[in-house]
Amino acid sequence: MSFDTDKANEKNRGLIDGIVSELCAAAVDSMARLRRKPARHVAPSRVAVLKIMENIRMILFPGYHGPPDLTEETLPYYLGAKLDQTRNLLEDQITRGLCFLCPSDECARLREECIEKASKIVGIFLGFLPEIRRILMTDVQAAYEGDPAAKSPDEAIFCYPGIQAVTNHRIAHELYRLDVPLIPRIISESAHSVTGIDIHPGAVIGERFFMDHGTGIVVGETSVIGSNVRLYQGVTLGALSFPLDASGKPIKGIPRHPVVEDDVIIYSGATILGRITIGKGSVIGGNVWLTQDVPPGSKLTQRKARED
Amino acid sequence: MSFDTDKANEKNRGLIDGIVSELCAAAVDSMARLRRKPARHVAPSRVAVLKIMENIRMILFPGYHGPPDLTEETLPYYLGAKLDQTRNLLEDQITRGLCFLCPSDECARLREECIEKASKIVGIFLGFLPEIRRILMTDVQAAYEGDPAAKSPDEAIFCYPGIQAVTNHRIAHELYRLDVPLIPRIISESAHSVTGIDIHPGAVIGERFFMDHGTGIVVGETSVIGSNVRLYQGVTLGALSFPLDASGKPIKGIPRHPVVEDDVIIYSGATILGRITIGKGSVIGGNVWLTQDVPPGSKLTQRKARED
Amino acid sequence: MSFDTDKANEKNRGLIDGIVSELCAAAVDSMARLRRKPARHVAPSRVAVLKIMENIRMILFPGYHGPPDLTEETLPYYLGAKLDQTRNLLEDQITRGLCFLCPSDECARLREECIEKASKIVGIFLGFLPEIRRILMTDVQAAYEGDPAAKSPDEAIFCYPGIQAVTNHRIAHELYRLDVPLIPRIISESAHSVTGIDIHPGAVIGERFFMDHGTGIVVGETSVIGSNVRLYQGVTLGALSFPLDASGKPIKGIPRHPVVEDDVIIYSGATILGRITIGKGSVIGGNVWLTQDVPPGSKLTQRKARED
Amino acid sequence: MSFDTDKANEKNRGLIDGIVSELCAAAVDSMARLRRKPARHVAPSRVAVLKIMENIRMILFPGYHGPPDLTEETLPYYLGAKLDQTRNLLEDQITRGLCFLCPSDECARLREECIEKASKIVGIFLGFLPEIRRILMTDVQAAYEGDPAAKSPDEAIFCYPGIQAVTNHRIAHELYRLDVPLIPRIISESAHSVTGIDIHPGAVIGERFFMDHGTGIVVGETSVIGSNVRLYQGVTLGALSFPLDASGKPIKGIPRHPVVEDDVIIYSGATILGRITIGKGSVIGGNVWLTQDVPPGSKLTQRKARED
Amino acid sequence: MSFDTDKANEKNRGLIDGIVSELCAAAVDSMARLRRKPARHVAPSRVAVLKIMENIRMILFPGYHGPPDLTEETLPYYLGAKLDQTRNLLEDQITRGLCFLCPSDECARLREECIEKASKIVGIFLGFLPEIRRILMTDVQAAYEGDPAAKSPDEAIFCYPGIQAVTNHRIAHELYRLDVPLIPRIISESAHSVTGIDIHPGAVIGERFFMDHGTGIVVGETSVIGSNVRLYQGVTLGALSFPLDASGKPIKGIPRHPVVEDDVIIYSGATILGRITIGKGSVIGGNVWLTQDVPPGSKLTQRKARED
Amino acid sequence: MSFDTDKANEKNRGLIDGIVSELCAAAVDSMARLRRKPARHVAPSRVAVLKIMENIRMILFPGYHGPPDLTEETLPYYLGAKLDQTRNLLEDQITRGLCFLCPSDECARLREECIEKASKIVGIFLGFLPEIRRILMTDVQAAYEGDPAAKSPDEAIFCYPGIQAVTNHRIAHELYRLDVPLIPRIISESAHSVTGIDIHPGAVIGERFFMDHGTGIVVGETSVIGSNVRLYQGVTLGALSFPLDASGKPIKGIPRHPVVEDDVIIYSGATILGRITIGKGSVIGGNVWLTQDVPPGSKLTQRKARED
Repeated sequence: MSFDTDKANEKNRGLIDGIVSELCAAAVDSMARLRRKPARHVAPSRVAVLKIMENIRMILFPGYHGPPDLTEETLPYYLGAKLDQTRNLLEDQITRGLCFLCPSDECARLREECIEKASKIVGIFLGFLPEIRRILMTDVQAAYEGDPAAKSPDEAIFCYPGIQAVTNHRIAHELYRLDVPLIPRIISESAHSVTGIDIHPGAVIGERFFMDHGTGIVVGETSVIGSNVRLYQGVTLGALSFPLDASGKPIKGIPRHPVVEDDVIIYSGATILGRITIGKGSVIGGNVWLTQDVPPGSKLTQRKARED
Repeated sequence: MSFDTDKANEKNRGLIDGIVSELCAAAVDSMARLRRKPARHVAPSRVAVLKIMENIRMILFPGYHGPPDLTEETLPYYLGAKLDQTRNLLEDQITRGLCFLCPSDECARLREECIEKASKIVGIFLGFLPEIRRILMTDVQAAYEGDPAAKSPDEAIFCYPGIQAVTNHRIAHELYRLDVPLIPRIISESAHSVTGIDIHPGAVIGERFFMDHGTGIVVGETSVIGSNVRLYQGVTLGALSFPLDASGKPIKGIPRHPVVEDDVIIYSGATILGRITIGKGSVIGGNVWLTQDVPPGSKLTQRKARED
Repeated sequence: MSFDTDKANEKNRGLIDGIVSELCAAAVDSMARLRRKPARHVAPSRVAVLKIMENIRMILFPGYHGPPDLTEETLPYYLGAKLDQTRNLLEDQITRGLCFLCPSDECARLREECIEKASKIVGIFLGFLPEIRRILMTDVQAAYEGDPAAKSPDEAIFCYPGIQAVTNHRIAHELYRLDVPLIPRIISESAHSVTGIDIHPGAVIGERFFMDHGTGIVVGETSVIGSNVRLYQGVTLGALSFPLDASGKPIKGIPRHPVVEDDVIIYSGATILGRITIGKGSVIGGNVWLTQDVPPGSKLTQRKARED
Repeated sequence: MSFDTDKANEKNRGLIDGIVSELCAAAVDSMARLRRKPARHVAPSRVAVLKIMENIRMILFPGYHGPPDLTEETLPYYLGAKLDQTRNLLEDQITRGLCFLCPSDECARLREECIEKASKIVGIFLGFLPEIRRILMTDVQAAYEGDPAAKSPDEAIFCYPGIQAVTNHRIAHELYRLDVPLIPRIISESAHSVTGIDIHPGAVIGERFFMDHGTGIVVGETSVIGSNVRLYQGVTLGALSFPLDASGKPIKGIPRHPVVEDDVIIYSGATILGRITIGKGSVIGGNVWLTQDVPPGSKLTQRKARED
Repeated sequence: MSFDTDKANEKNRGLIDGIVSELCAAAVDSMARLRRKPARHVAPSRVAVLKIMENIRMILFPGYHGPPDLTEETLPYYLGAKLDQTRNLLEDQITRGLCFLCPSDECARLREECIEKASKIVGIFLGFLPEIRRILMTDVQAAYEGDPAAKSPDEAIFCYPGIQAVTNHRIAHELYRLDVPLIPRIISESAHSVTGIDIHPGAVIGERFFMDHGTGIVVGETSVIGSNVRLYQGVTLGALSFPLDASGKPIKGIPRHPVVEDDVIIYSGATILGRITIGKGSVIGGNVWLTQDVPPGSKLTQRKARED
Repeated sequence: MSFDTDKANEKNRGLIDGIVSELCAAAVDSMARLRRKPARHVAPSRVAVLKIMENIRMILFPGYHGPPDLTEETLPYYLGAKLDQTRNLLEDQITRGLCFLCPSDECARLREECIEKASKIVGIFLGFLPEIRRILMTDVQAAYEGDPAAKSPDEAIFCYPGIQAVTNHRIAHELYRLDVPLIPRIISESAHSVTGIDIHPGAVIGERFFMDHGTGIVVGETSVIGSNVRLYQGVTLGALSFPLDASGKPIKGIPRHPVVEDDVIIYSGATILGRITIGKGSVIGGNVWLTQDVPPGSKLTQRKARED
């Protein structure tokens, strides 16, 4: 920034004034189109949500994440302090989420209701943490047992992207079920950006869920996955098509993703679309394109490659 | 670092001296092979480019990114200040990019020219921002309409990786068209690393472009994409092969990636290679491998999976 | 956090006490199941490992990463200081890794042995750096020659995710060969999360290795890759199935991933599973699913897509 | 933190439980004595106040503090954005200050009033900034003229502790006059800790005020200082004694510090105590102890030192 | 750093090599003179000591320093977690301090002893915290009662430099009494640099100690101060002279600073030197130079200033 | 910042527009008065100067400041790297200083000269470092010998404010002698703000200089101090008065501060003013006010305090 840009700046004089005018006009305009006044409320903060997830990871896996050297005597203090911090941060973020999407013009009056609602939600959510922990431990065990390269369950907790993604999902899913707006999506996207695994917070997933490698896995909003299911990288559980409403827009909330029953394995790159059911114990080969029900115990593979 | 490593260090005495000698010799050597003296100029900074993109995101989507609580009165000030910061940062980075790749030995003389060129480029580029914003708003609308899980356009702006990637692309593409070296690639790689979507800055992409989930999407340098196109995760628009020059190296810059016409949908994992044309309104199924033209309105799917 | 949450807090009184009790009980319990007392030792630090990799990148590619403006006079000083920093950081992390997984109860006695072992390992490892650098330069050259969009080898070093991933792999692989626990995996996962390329530290990879785009590439633990091999995004070199031991758990360490001979190209999305051999000079088309040996010089492509 | 402290910890088991119990009991106790429940409200943040002062310094002295390279075109944008940031930060801090000291139990009801009051105060305060700037420029000029070592007024703005302290004072004084609690004191203490100059926010100080070196200067709450006054390091304008109320506590708010008329110079280490008046144009020598009125034009010095 | 300094660097070629040689020779040399090999052990870290003091301030004054919004339910968790962090940090720093000054060559053997000693010291020290808190509350009360400008005890805890300095002193003093090397001095210097108050950790100070303004106060190592004493800025309690040993160096550890009895007030700038006693209830005027005992109840002031 | 400030903002509408206008007018105006256009050049950066001093402290006192665990083998690498960093940072800051104060309008032409001049100055300055180190070691030895509370010279290097201040001074003084503008003053002010010791960079100071406690010491620009001099806190070496030029401004650069010969001790709070000479070996008592020459070997003390 230390160049002598005098001459150049001379030429650009007025440039910024002009762009600012255009952009202000556009922002007012298009924001109105989106039915929002510019920034009436403080939007949720991605950074705060990341901090919340970091706290929760420490709470769920003490000794692996967060402060080291915990003992039986000191563990409760760290857990309690992190839980309280998490409560405060989460109440604030959920309040922001509720207000951000609130269509009402009577915001001052409704704000108190949002705060109270957020506080109630957080109280319920925190109460789920011990159960979430129990289930995640079954995921860890499944990862250890399912991956011949795994040296110990510790390694899975410590650095398996699949464990990171399913942790975020199980948290996001509970918030989704509590009708929290935006925050669950930010949580699932934060795992997506780090692991390449994209699980919609709405998906229902059973115990002992293992995703190996994981990059490119997509699990849609209305998917239902049983226990002891294993997905490899690049697997899609998606929608085949979706009914449109009168105005040509997709109707929201209709079940449109697969049901995967217990003990199913789906190999890398398989694409499974629509509200179909993959029967218990089936094995789906890599790169398969599947849009129809599969009975329990099936084994599907792609047609053989052709030699040129 | 507080271990008593005295004994160990004793054994390693001389280790560092030896490695330094080897590496210095190698660096001088191989850097010469790359026709560059060690570090004649300051290379562009990834961190600065990320800052530039953060600024631009604030400028394009005020209220969603950057400072909250903007009002009609304060918006112009924030926009103006961010624009000026962005101008300064970008001029510096582009100058670095121009100098870094400059083959000349007469750098002192040419430096002034690089600075002036950078300043001119930035002036032109900033003038594009209002139009880039307008087009991005069509992408946001397409995302909202194309994803049944989307609750509002806000959500798309706020946390859809596809929107993040296409924002980076539209910025990088304008800089690419202005012959800026390195910086466009750093911008597209920064989106790639976060979203798993890899769009070469050279690709030409129309309005209302929607990438759902996105991980693993690859769009090559000479691809041409029409309006209202939707790509799912894992779609490749790549080159099939490329002509080599006399010395066996690929010839740069020849059109070698697909043309995708308006209103096309390509499902997850499809691989489309070579300078072929996917006709208007076609639907390409998942995991398809495609190397030939497809007429308008076609519907292609993979052959059925084989039951073992 | 500045809302008046008095009333809400009133309702939640006792909430945290209850959750802390449950989580403490669970942590003691399940950690015992994992055969570890809660946090006896300090676990390795992901942040420190990232710092180590950043240092090594500067050591291997001075002028591209790390401090700019190096000259022949100053280069040795920067290299020496970074090498020493790296030695200290790496000794500490490897000691942590050894202790973290140490099953023994006699830790106080064994600790000194761990420290000494870590110091020896680091001494050997640092001595490999010049050779690692030499090989990486062949990878850079292959990237430049193999990608028509590459403007210069500089660009590849600077921002190609494939180069970042193979750098991490070559480092992680040497540590893996030296029986370092956890750290190699953290190194490979750090590349995985940024590039979407997941190479197990155990994989053996020859010179001139080029991964274009890269997202979704998976290379398994016992893979063997020859020289001058090129992989595109989404390629899997995986295991088809693996023998279980008497208790139904996979037996660790058996060769179960492909052997890819010299001069092979594998296009995007191909899935290659099991201990099969892809013969020298073969070309494997995109999205192919392959579980059998392929003779040298083969060209395989997916069956043609079906028009609906 | 990587020592093997197992044995030591064994001995300390229970230590923390014990101390926590004692401290909790004490905190509840003594905080009750201070008539406050533990942390009912969020206290003001020193870090935020420092940020506010940094902003204001940029607003008052653009080009010297804050972003460089401002031009006539870009200056308004930076000023506007900083002013808005400052407004938001200051409203929040003043609200916290008002709530922190609020004796009432009906806080939920009064909170809205505090917020509204804070907003009104900030509106008035920001309107004072242009006048504050004008007066500070007279201080800068006085520093330049009064210090033979000063090379330019720039140097004074840039790094004279006296200018830093008087800037903080003039800001703190206006907030003090607007009955803002705590924040003015945090502002004056932040200057005190950096410069060693301790001016109570209540002191009234005229134009062209110059403090050379400054360390150890103390100016009490009810001091009144005219125009064109110069103080050297270690000068005290303090209270001699103060009347106690029936319970033996000092009565607050009574004028008890000196009045210093225009054009007075007071040399280093002079101690001037009580509600006395130093007449216009007087010169007070170093280390003098003064508790009585001094007529205009006086010259006082300490008695001669005694040779042993 | 982006200037073209090629020519200049050319002239300076060899400069750094030369200076490095000289400095290395000097470091080896003079460090030997100081009877230490260069950096055998890791020195204590000022940053870590600051962190320790920040933690202790939170532990002693919850709600004023550290996390806000504490309640009776959450307070114990925060206290316990901070205490454990503080224990770990302090054990590490004290071990460093003990090792740094350890004259022995048998360090490996002695190290374990240092660690154990540090752990014992920390255990004892933490047990003092509740009593330290009780005494500090008397200091806070004295500040509130002694300063007519104080609006509430809260304000004193929150931002009075005197309270900050006496907090650091009471901590440093207990560590000094436990024979901790270096750390107490770093603690007292950290208060000195922020407040200008320099109290040697060895000084013994009674309850209800109040320092108003404080800048320039010096309290020497062997000073003894009773209860309810008030010092103003610039007061020195120093040594008049000190006996030298045979080699002309001052003999360490002899009582050489004043004894100040209960209820004494000393005004600004007074210099009190030598092992003299200021009798109970005395008042010492500003700028007085005092080297002899003063009986209880005395009132001393400086001779009157002389008019020129 | 999350309060509902809608109503308040309503009232303040237009506030920021108004203040911005006033401040812009004022800035243009008064900056013109100071004979500078608003921010033509980038001003020096205090943060960068602090970084430079941190580097130099590491270079001068390796093992005490900066990276720990240095050995004979690694020391040169750290020194070389830090020296090169320091060279780059210092060249940049000095160039900024030269340009910032440059009165010329032909800046583009003169800029190259400034850069070259800065580079030359830095080359000369760095060459002084070994000698500066030698002298500082005599200061350290004097501190150890002069302070009965000092446990070792290590402690003095590690945390004595007097050593920190004299280190900054000896660096600033060499830059002052090389006619560097602004930077020396920023260096001395940075020590002033931390230690309360204010030494003008112009002062000439001999070896074995010891300042005990230090707060409030002021040493003026033209002071000359011999070898083995000791100053206590609050000592002023100042100007008594200074001749004014025709326009009533002080004439710059005339010798106006004391000469203090070898082996002098000056106790706390003494004020010594004017171009007088304190003869070799003299002892000046605390709080003395001195404006006349003192012959060698004198002992001066303040008159006895008066009992009321």
